[in-house]
This record gives sequence, structure tokens and C-alpha cells, in this order.
Amino acid sequence: MSLLEKLDAAASARIAQLPSGLGAFGIPIEEIYSPTEARIGTKRILLLGTNNYLGLSFSPECRKAAHEAIDQEGTGTTGSRMANGNYSGHRALEMEFADFYQCRSCIVFTTGYQANLGTISGLIGPGDVALIDGDSHASIYDGCVLSGADIIRFRHNDVIDLEKRLRRLGERSKNTLIIVEGIYSMLGDQAPLADIVRLKKAYNSTLLLDEAHSLGVLGETGRGLAEKYGLIGEVDFITGTFSKSLCGIGGYCVSNHPQLDQLRYVSHPYIFTASPSPATIAATRAALKLLKNGRELRERLWENARQLYSHLQALGYQVSPEPGPIVATILDSPQQALALWKGLLENGIYVNLILPPAAPEGKSLVRCSVNAAHTTKQIEYVCEVFSRLYSSIIQ
Amino acid sequence: MSLLEKLDAAASARIAQLPSGLGAFGIPIEEIYSPTEARIGTKRILLLGTNNYLGLSFSPECRKAAHEAIDQEGTGTTGSRMANGNYSGHRALEMEFADFYQCRSCIVFTTGYQANLGTISGLIGPGDVALIDGDSHASIYDGCVLSGADIIRFRHNDVIDLEKRLRRLGERSKNTLIIVEGIYSMLGDQAPLADIVRLKKAYNSTLLLDEAHSLGVLGETGRGLAEKYGLIGEVDFITGTFSKSLCGIGGYCVSNHPQLDQLRYVSHPYIFTASPSPATIAATRAALKLLKNGRELRERLWENARQLYSHLQALGYQVSPEPGPIVATILDSPQQALALWKGLLENGIYVNLILPPAAPEGKSLVRCSVNAAHTTKQIEYVCEVFSRLYSSIIQ
Repeated sequence: MSLLEKLDAAASARIAQLPSGLGAFGIPIEEIYSPTEARIGTKRILLLGTNNYLGLSFSPECRKAAHEAIDQEGTGTTGSRMANGNYSGHRALEMEFADFYQCRSCIVFTTGYQANLGTISGLIGPGDVALIDGDSHASIYDGCVLSGADIIRFRHNDVIDLEKRLRRLGERSKNTLIIVEGIYSMLGDQAPLADIVRLKKAYNSTLLLDEAHSLGVLGETGRGLAEKYGLIGEVDFITGTFSKSLCGIGGYCVSNHPQLDQLRYVSHPYIFTASPSPATIAATRAALKLLKNGRELRERLWENARQLYSHLQALGYQVSPEPGPIVATILDSPQQALALWKGLLENGIYVNLILPPAAPEGKSLVRCSVNAAHTTKQIEYVCEVFSRLYSSIIQ
Repeated sequence: MSLLEKLDAAASARIAQLPSGLGAFGIPIEEIYSPTEARIGTKRILLLGTNNYLGLSFSPECRKAAHEAIDQEGTGTTGSRMANGNYSGHRALEMEFADFYQCRSCIVFTTGYQANLGTISGLIGPGDVALIDGDSHASIYDGCVLSGADIIRFRHNDVIDLEKRLRRLGERSKNTLIIVEGIYSMLGDQAPLADIVRLKKAYNSTLLLDEAHSLGVLGETGRGLAEKYGLIGEVDFITGTFSKSLCGIGGYCVSNHPQLDQLRYVSHPYIFTASPSPATIAATRAALKLLKNGRELRERLWENARQLYSHLQALGYQVSPEPGPIVATILDSPQQALALWKGLLENGIYVNLILPPAAPEGKSLVRCSVNAAHTTKQIEYVCEVFSRLYSSIIQ
């Protein structure tokens, strides 16, 4: 079978697994009106499936900064950081991130995917071990594959299983990079960070924490799960993204270890890519300021999260393990998830449909995410629709 | 040795290999004035080391498009194409690329690095073969690693060696993806595409051509090496980037094979990343229009390229195998390359310094790249400085 025939076979297998009627992936957004509303087809739709946690995508400050950067620095740098793409804004953003975390240094990457790929493949190599949570994001897994290290998964958020695997590694535990996430993207639950820090110290391992979904969301100043637990100084490397709460595109890694800067010389996903555009850098710098001082935004976000979570739970939906901006409802079958997803869309609400094998443990999810820009009225409407659909789809 | 100690050891080894005085990597650009000028430190510098081949980074059309997108659609999409990041602009750009190449379809990726990573790792897998040019860009190599396929390199631009390896593969040649580049990034030479197409057909292999440095540069309408040879229909997959001639950030793959669209369901670097920002998409669409109709820009670019190439050659410098926008001078040692690079910078000219192991075959390069915005006067000045430095550094 040739390469192309193999792709065709894979496509057929995939299609056979899925419920029919799936235009669900990559739903076309025709116009975007605000952080909470868009036009899909001819219909005005409430967006309840973005990563726009602080609702900053249309912030006047960020847009102004982006406009100025385009006028002053053009549309793109046309080069890598190592060559001609190392502008003052890129360095300033790195310093501002380092300062935000009160860490020694920061590296900015061109995407969040590349931040994980570049950090992980720069830190570990053949002979080392990547000990990763079973629900890890694909960017973490791909970074481990690219590194050539041995990949071992521990059961999602299970510290007993993590310790068992560290113990088994013996001497190799000190060549082990443990990787966890602040908030997991599918179910929205948080890593048990205090226990994980205790274990990484006991076994002389190194810890990387991905705060992609928790930046701006957790902690007094929005620094994420590590701030929530007062453990920023105990985590070796923290990565994150600009494309969620910061409404840009790109990613970062911060650390107190001087070794972080050495990644600039070895990490392909950092070296061999054009640096972020001036507009992205400027908008992200403006967004980071808003995020730091965003206590009110975070309060608003959490009010919305708690309201939706408790309502869905009360209705009888099986929901995420804990409340948070990601509120996933766990369905019995792909068919049921698809029906719920369609019912919501028919009622003008867009959420994410996650079917096997994308969801953990073969589950089917209807994944909602709320943001600080959602009004109480919008959340109430969502609750009302979920309530109506419960009787027709779940019961 | 722990992970962090290992990184320290690697850093020491790297430093020991390099000539002293190397602040050369990641030179800080304080202000950017135009596609050909910037401030480095307190000095106004002529930029002769960017990938801004058509000089469009400050184009009024692209900036206007970016401004409008920021106002209408915000600073970022905050989601992947598969979720909430599939705006009308993303789809329009894909259709415009497909139309440009007169190909069936196009997938847009968030970076050029991810375009290669995503296309390659989506097309091949364990048991398949990636047969790649020895001078391949890191994004190609990393895509192959991520795919899990067997990686075989053939000697740079050597079709005899390529055929030898295809013959040795026997039956496996039909599960082989041959990967070459339109213009190679280091020496600026072009792949012998007609011969490569002949071989891929004879051995039933699949061919991927990366036009990163040749888009906008080669071919009547700037479609690259495949257009120059009239072979667009014969290449299975063509990838490229927005961050060079198009002055954006992102990448694409076009193909006539319907299998291309299946990558949207399997390719991690496509699925698990936020989609490009509205400003980037809008600016890239505007740049693509200018590129298509950019015959004059290409003529200007090639005049500059030929002028610099022939002058350096006449002076006695060892230069790239053929003239083109990338004009590399090949030096005997890293020390000599560093001296030349420093001499150019002292005279107000920024070029790229490429030292082992980054340059092919352990060479040391001073790599110039010209663009359509360079004036004849600027190129004459560059020639004059190279002339002066020849007597003091090379002879």
C-alpha cells in the first residue's frame, strides 16, 4: 500500500468510528463580533467554547498596541530570533514575563505548541525519561517524541502512580522530567501540585508545569496553579501560551535555572522559526499588563464558571471533577454527545464537541468554556438550554 | 549527571568550539525603519540578512489589511482551527493559495516550522521512509523524527546518490516520501527538480517540495522552483512559509491529492495549536496578491542578487554554487567568518554568520540575502565594503 493509499484507509477507518452528520470539526465562523458572540452560517451565536478566558480579544489597549507596532515595525520580522528577528519588543516581553514570575529568565516562542516542543526537546534527550500525565496535551507528547527520551505516562492526576513509577526508575529518576499541567484542557481539572513538587524533590527529578489554561485564571495575580499554591519557586520550568487568556499567538518558558537560556542554542523549535510578529508581541505585552491587574476579570470569570458548573451538576449532568472555566459534561456515547452539541447549536450556543479518541479514557465530551466577558444573562440562557436538552437527550 | 548538569556540560562544550567574542547570535535590533534599515545599538545599519525577499514588510496594502482585521476580528482567535479558530479569513487564504497553485486544496498552518512538521508527520509514519536531502532545514528533519518513519539522507542535490538509495529501498520505495527544497537556506542553491521528479515517478515514491525560500522568488508568478520548471502538477505536496517573501507568520501545504485534507484529522501540529491571528491572515492575503503580481519586484530582486553575486565572485570570494537572493560566502575557518562578519557590521552592514555545526559540511558562512527594496546604491556600498575587507581579512 502506497503512502496515499494508507492515508485513504486511515480516513475510512476514522469515518466508520464516528457518528454520522459530523460537520462538527472546524465549524466555520463567518464573523466575530466580540469575545462572546459570532456569526455561524446566518445565525448570531453565543460562543461558549473558546480559550478567551479574560475576554481580552477586543481589548482597546491590546488593539492600540498592535496598531502601533504594525505602523512602526511592519507586519512581520521575516527572521528567527537568532538572525534578524530579535526586536526590542521580543526582549521586552521576555523581561516582563520573567519579572511577572520573579524568575531569572524567560524565552518567548512563536506558538504555544512550539513552547512545549522547544522546551521539552531542549531539556531532555535520548537516555533521559519524560514522565508525563496520562492526559497530557499533544504538544507535550510531541515534545517528548522529538526529544528521543523514553516516555512514561502516569495515571492522570494520580500521585500514587507517579511515585510508583519514580521509584521503579531508580537512579534514572534524576534524569527524569516530570510534566504536568495547571488546568487540563479536556476536563478542566487541576494538577495536585503540592504532592508533585514533594515527589520531584524526593526523587531529584526536574518538574515542568504547563500553565496554558491556568495563566490569568488561577492565582492572586493570574500566574496560574503554581501561584495558587505558592510554589512558583519550586517548579523548575513553567511554560504557557499567549493564545488563551492573552489573546495573542505564541508561548513562553520561565525559569530560575540559568540553563534555560541554553535552550536558545539547542532547541530547534526556537531556533528554526521566524519570531512572532511585532503586532503579536505588542498586543501580548498589553494583555499581560491587563492580566496582572485583572483581579476583577478573574472574579467575573470564576462567578460565571461556578454558576454554570453548579447548574449543570444540579440538573444531573455528569460534569468535570471540579469547577473552573472549562466545564465539561461527560456523555455516555458519541451519539449522545453529538445530539447535545447539535441541540446547543440549534439554540444558538457554540461549544466544543470532543469524541474518542481525543477525549480521555474514550469518553465523549461536550466541553464548555466560560470567560470574563460573558454576562450573567448569557450564562442564565445557557443554563436554561442545557436544562431543556437534559429531558430530551439525557433522560 | 542530572538533567540540568547535562545542559551545563553541553553549554561548555559549545562555548569551547566557538571563536571568542561571539555576541553574534540574536543581534538586538532596537528599531526597524524599513525592509533594508534598522538601528542596532546606536547605529543605523543596512540589513543584508533577512528573508524579506520582496521587501513587503512595510507595504501599505498589508498594513492596512492588518489594521482592519484587528479592528473587526480582534487580536487573536484563542482557538485551533478544529475548535473556535476557523474564521472566514483562514478559509479564504487557503482557497487563495489553492487557486494560486491551481491545486485542489491547501492547509494553512500557524508557523512555517509547523507546516513542515504537520505535513510530514501527517503523511508518513513508522515503517515508512523519509528520504531527505542532506542539507534539509531543521523543520523537515524534526517532522521526520516526529513521524516515526525511517530517515535516510541523500547527498545534497546529488541525484545519483538519490537514485542509489531509492534502488536499495526496493519495494519500500513506494512508501517513501522524498523531501527537497526549492532554494536551500544556507547556500541558496536550487534542487535539480526535473531529475528528482523523474526518479520519484520511476520508483513510485511521493515527493514533497518546500518552497520556503523560493516562493515569490522563482517562477513567472512567484510560485517557486516547481513553477520555474513547469512541474507544479508533478510535485505531490508543496509546503511554504508566510514569514519570508510574504512578511507574515505561518505556513501552508498545497496539493492535488484529496488526501491532503485528511491531515486536518491526524496532524498534531495542525490540530493542537491556535490558528493564526486575524492580522496575520489579512496581511498575508494582501501580500499574496502583491506577490502574484510582483514581476517587477522579482526583477528588482534578481538584479540585486546578480550584482552582489558577480561582484563577490569577481573579488575572489568563494561564493554559493549559483546566484540568487541568498549569496553565501564560504570561509576557511570560523575565525575568518567572524572577522568578516564583524568587519561588515563595523561598516554598518548586517549579515548572517553561520558557524559549524549549523552550516553544511562543517563550513563557515557569511550569508547575505538581498531583497527587492535594496537600492542599487545600497548594493554598491555593500560591494565596496566587501572589496575593502577582502584585502584585510581573506588575503
